[in-house]
Amino acid sequence: MAVGLTLPEPASLFPVAGVELGVAMAGVRKANRRDLLLMRLGAESTVAGVFTRNRFCAAPVIIAKRNLAAGSGIRGLVINTGNANAGTGEDGLARATLVCEGVALSLGCAADQVLPFSTGVIMEPLPAERIVAGLAAAVADLRAHNWAVAAEAIMTTDTVPKAASRRARLAGGEVTVTGIAKGAGMIRPDMATMLSFIATDARVSRQALETLVRETADKSFNCISVDGDTSTNDAFVLVASGASGVVAQSGADLAALGAAIAEVAVLLAQAIVRDGEGATKFITIRVEGGRSVDECRRVAYAIAHSPLVKTAFFASDPNLGRILAAIGNAGIADLDVSRLQLYLDAVLVAANGGRHPDYMEDQGAAALAKPEFTVRAVLNRGQAAATVWTCDLSFDYVKINAEYRT
Amino acid sequence: MAVGLTLPEPASLFPVAGVELGVAMAGVRKANRRDLLLMRLGAESTVAGVFTRNRFCAAPVIIAKRNLAAGSGIRGLVINTGNANAGTGEDGLARATLVCEGVALSLGCAADQVLPFSTGVIMEPLPAERIVAGLAAAVADLRAHNWAVAAEAIMTTDTVPKAASRRARLAGGEVTVTGIAKGAGMIRPDMATMLSFIATDARVSRQALETLVRETADKSFNCISVDGDTSTNDAFVLVASGASGVVAQSGADLAALGAAIAEVAVLLAQAIVRDGEGATKFITIRVEGGRSVDECRRVAYAIAHSPLVKTAFFASDPNLGRILAAIGNAGIADLDVSRLQLYLDAVLVAANGGRHPDYMEDQGAAALAKPEFTVRAVLNRGQAAATVWTCDLSFDYVKINAEYRT
Repeated sequence: MAVGLTLPEPASLFPVAGVELGVAMAGVRKANRRDLLLMRLGAESTVAGVFTRNRFCAAPVIIAKRNLAAGSGIRGLVINTGNANAGTGEDGLARATLVCEGVALSLGCAADQVLPFSTGVIMEPLPAERIVAGLAAAVADLRAHNWAVAAEAIMTTDTVPKAASRRARLAGGEVTVTGIAKGAGMIRPDMATMLSFIATDARVSRQALETLVRETADKSFNCISVDGDTSTNDAFVLVASGASGVVAQSGADLAALGAAIAEVAVLLAQAIVRDGEGATKFITIRVEGGRSVDECRRVAYAIAHSPLVKTAFFASDPNLGRILAAIGNAGIADLDVSRLQLYLDAVLVAANGGRHPDYMEDQGAAALAKPEFTVRAVLNRGQAAATVWTCDLSFDYVKINAEYRT
Repeated sequence: MAVGLTLPEPASLFPVAGVELGVAMAGVRKANRRDLLLMRLGAESTVAGVFTRNRFCAAPVIIAKRNLAAGSGIRGLVINTGNANAGTGEDGLARATLVCEGVALSLGCAADQVLPFSTGVIMEPLPAERIVAGLAAAVADLRAHNWAVAAEAIMTTDTVPKAASRRARLAGGEVTVTGIAKGAGMIRPDMATMLSFIATDARVSRQALETLVRETADKSFNCISVDGDTSTNDAFVLVASGASGVVAQSGADLAALGAAIAEVAVLLAQAIVRDGEGATKFITIRVEGGRSVDECRRVAYAIAHSPLVKTAFFASDPNLGRILAAIGNAGIADLDVSRLQLYLDAVLVAANGGRHPDYMEDQGAAALAKPEFTVRAVLNRGQAAATVWTCDLSFDYVKINAEYRT
């Protein structure tokens, strides 16, 4: 359904100097589809990543974290679809290592300079030999102008490829930020997974990049929810190739670069929600006036995760009771509900512990009938705020997820 | 749909000496339906209750908690359907007080000796005057043999009335325990609510009863989940009329009485899940070998609340990846997933971080095709265990909740 999501124009995706991408058909699960992406990074690249917190994290996630921590300088990223290599125990680690060794041979680096990523079915052995066999074609395809094709190659249940670019002006000159993502909502641990790779040609220290990747994730991928489930393979990786020669080191330069990265990441994160399974609405949930960002996020997620609220959004039903009950369930023990104000877009719908006297239900229904709207809760107990993006819960969500494997 | 749920046989519901029930048609929301239940308690009764933790708790909940705490001895319970008197601010408290005053006049007690309960639409003014006007008919109907009719009178979206009885033999003689409940799964804060009232003719001190009500709730109503939403009006009240003259004071007597109360409460709690909106399956989730009951419950609820797991249950799809991913998401930071064993009924399906080598998928599919089955996760890190009962997530859940108000 993909609410308000259009195909990225290839010409709008700027190449990033020092980063080449090549795709191939490795036949991981199905023949005749591009299911392998290789990214070759210049020797001066720094890389940082954030990964799923699911305790059942997949073999490639374990190896990617280990190789990042080893700090030998990452030279290649390898991503396959069709098989998640998750829930595969020791054998899964061996197979992911085999893929890294194949990439190392192809690129002329060490195996611990490669980060592997997998997405697809869970608990099936990864056909590592087919992936290794496909690497030659991926190497032959390596080009800087390959972002649109790469976005398509990492799709699984996505209906639209997700990619975006921005440029930022730093003191030393202009730099480019381009990224891709996949995921139809973190909601299919066995066939979905959220993956995102964003690269810049700025030169950034490893330490600064690690801060940037965490800050960016907190503003983008950590603010989305389709159904509250988290994949075993989720990963977001930030690459700084340094190939532009423009150094981002001062606070001002890092802020400008961070802003461009955040713009790309927010677009990609929102694209995942817009492409959420069965989604017919894109909803921004904004919580203001909290004592901390954490409590604002808890309230926002309590709304975003409530199946009752999400089915009401699907029905364009301004069911205030469900939203207020979700807020009351957020686990904030001393929340004074009589001080809360609730808005649907610009309409004040609830205040003083009940419906606002001026509110007419057709105003709420009109707001919710739109494909995109904002639910805003003002807690009136502090200065903090948080935003979460989510989608509705439709018949098609159940249909897609109930019939998926059959 | 009501999985495996049959109408309670009125003859199987034993009257409880010292407790009379009367119903009436008060026209709270619709004409010609029994929407008012009055319970008159003998003068020696002790009463204890547990209530919703939702911060948007309804006006009657606030008053019921206050009157229980006042400790003047509760003489009457009044329950209306059709209107929840929730999200109604100060005016809602005034209207609930008016109802208590009407009951006090009818029963010849003080207003703070009455506990009010409401369930139905939210954010609408309670028609207190119509309820008060209906009290005369309810008083005229007061009888000890009215439990089946009472169970029906408190239904809202329930498809089957919920009631159960047990007898227990104490040192001083036999006592009776009878209870009723309503709720189609805690899942409609504006029209559902879980309410349960269980009475015994044993004589129990207020302090012992307060322990019993908490212990019982933890074994029954706190172990169920339809969709993780909690109503603004949830309440479970335990009444000990003392009218049998049999005192429950010794540890052995309190244990015997507690066991009978727990049996009734578990039946009622399970009945709510079996009657869950759109439910086609009744699922027991058992988590064993945890370090604490709390962490076992967190794992069990992570499974029970995952929309992905619930849609797979609906489809009879033994999708192990979804269950394992839900366990991995339970927030237990040091969980060693390679030590976990997962069973579908008696079939060992996963161990050592992956699928069990002997497991054949048609075994899992056969287990999940049944209307009732058990998912058992053994964490192998301690001695604690916990059980949660839940249902699946079907097309009808979305249909019922999306179309409810339209």
